[in-house]
Amino acid sequence: MAIPSIAAVRKALIAPPGKPFDLSKRDTSGREVFTDKVEAGTSLKKDAAVINELKDMLYAEGKRSLLVILQGMDTSGKSGTIKSVFSDTTPLGMEVKAFKAPSSEELARDYLWRVHNAVPRRGHVGIFDRSQYEDVLVVRVRGFAPLDEIEARYEQINAFEKHLGENGTKVVKFMLNIGYEEQGVRLKERLKEVHKLWKFNPGDLDDRSRWAEFMAAYQLAVSRCSTRHSPWYVVPSDSRTRRNAAIARIVRGAMEDMELKWRDPGLKPESFDFGEGRISS
Amino acid sequence: MAIPSIAAVRKALIAPPGKPFDLSKRDTSGREVFTDKVEAGTSLKKDAAVINELKDMLYAEGKRSLLVILQGMDTSGKSGTIKSVFSDTTPLGMEVKAFKAPSSEELARDYLWRVHNAVPRRGHVGIFDRSQYEDVLVVRVRGFAPLDEIEARYEQINAFEKHLGENGTKVVKFMLNIGYEEQGVRLKERLKEVHKLWKFNPGDLDDRSRWAEFMAAYQLAVSRCSTRHSPWYVVPSDSRTRRNAAIARIVRGAMEDMELKWRDPGLKPESFDFGEGRISS
Repeated sequence: MAIPSIAAVRKALIAPPGKPFDLSKRDTSGREVFTDKVEAGTSLKKDAAVINELKDMLYAEGKRSLLVILQGMDTSGKSGTIKSVFSDTTPLGMEVKAFKAPSSEELARDYLWRVHNAVPRRGHVGIFDRSQYEDVLVVRVRGFAPLDEIEARYEQINAFEKHLGENGTKVVKFMLNIGYEEQGVRLKERLKEVHKLWKFNPGDLDDRSRWAEFMAAYQLAVSRCSTRHSPWYVVPSDSRTRRNAAIARIVRGAMEDMELKWRDPGLKPESFDFGEGRISS
Repeated sequence: MAIPSIAAVRKALIAPPGKPFDLSKRDTSGREVFTDKVEAGTSLKKDAAVINELKDMLYAEGKRSLLVILQGMDTSGKSGTIKSVFSDTTPLGMEVKAFKAPSSEELARDYLWRVHNAVPRRGHVGIFDRSQYEDVLVVRVRGFAPLDEIEARYEQINAFEKHLGENGTKVVKFMLNIGYEEQGVRLKERLKEVHKLWKFNPGDLDDRSRWAEFMAAYQLAVSRCSTRHSPWYVVPSDSRTRRNAAIARIVRGAMEDMELKWRDPGLKPESFDFGEGRISS
């Protein structure tokens, strides 16, 4: 057994742009990608170290940025992914934005206004914990906007992400695909452990009771918005280790595609005055 | 030898509020606090792990925030401090704000406008890499504002920090105190190593040539703005390990003072419907 190549993980998990996609056929266990859990852990550790170095190079370059979008049902592990995939990176040059229910200021603008405002600055890695996709997911399931408005959003989001890509922000999207049973287990865990209790929100059970509707909304969002410039990856998330390992492979791949390099501006030490041994004032 | 207590490190490095302070008498080596460098490394590692846990508790509580301000001459290690003291923490709930030369939008408002805007949200740890103190440091040295305006700022900053403290944001300030000689060594290092080259800015040499003026401005800022609610710590920074270890001790102490706890809202698993075994739609 060996760690699967980045290309193999991408191929297994991508929702192929322009091709039929069926969420219900997607595995949630992750065993198809990482047979061996220990191996997944090793892979994750290695990739986290490489991601750390690539992030420093991105920061040093200061010209482009990477935006990682995480979407998934409660307990699918959005926070856990951030914690593990970026475990080696310094918070300098990282921006995590958790999108919650929109404020009145945000509702007073179009739904992409707050999203655009949160795009990472050049040189940074941005992570969206939830994103513009809430506006075609929960908003669709709960009927928070008229259906014709929601229907128009998929193409608007594609255009927005294309714009970001053309202007130096690479967008990579992950749907954390957890099974209904595993979610039940994890919600109950939250009630048992004192350091997880704060995460428990009785409202999550309400979303859970609409599981099939949410899956239908994800099916639409992923199939309509997986594009060549900004593909969706559907990541099996019943196993935390396999989920993290798969995402780390793909994040690393996205950063390697950016062909980052340490630049050498050719400065010569002897051409500068370091003011040796004296403090002038 | 033992790791110095948090109280001992604080006592050694604080600029005591309301008492005379002389920057020129402060050590830059760090050997007075951590005699043994290996021990400093051990201390840092332990504290980083505790800081990680306390940060999770702060995030879970979601009511208060911590703001760590880092100021220091170029190469004093603001980025390095962030990298090491917060090496164990997930980027979720961390906000690093690097203040650069103000934009025209920022210059069109009072100097605290952009600072207030960057204050960490409740539950978060915010780190300022440079801060409102630039407006009494480089601005003073370079004469970017009239002297009477600058003179009024110290009390304004004290009032602002008091306001933050009274509203749930604890402010801890560190001056990274590097010696003139050590800075010369580090600037030259930047020219030699390809992964440090991007940090080299010939303009830094211009600041270096005004070392004594900068130290005089720091002397004023630290002595006038070290308050009971928001003290300044002057951290010897010629040794990276000792600097990081000292800051980690003090950050840990500040977080421990917040008396964070995992709260138990007393939820009972049996009172919730987890919708076992069926997906409703």
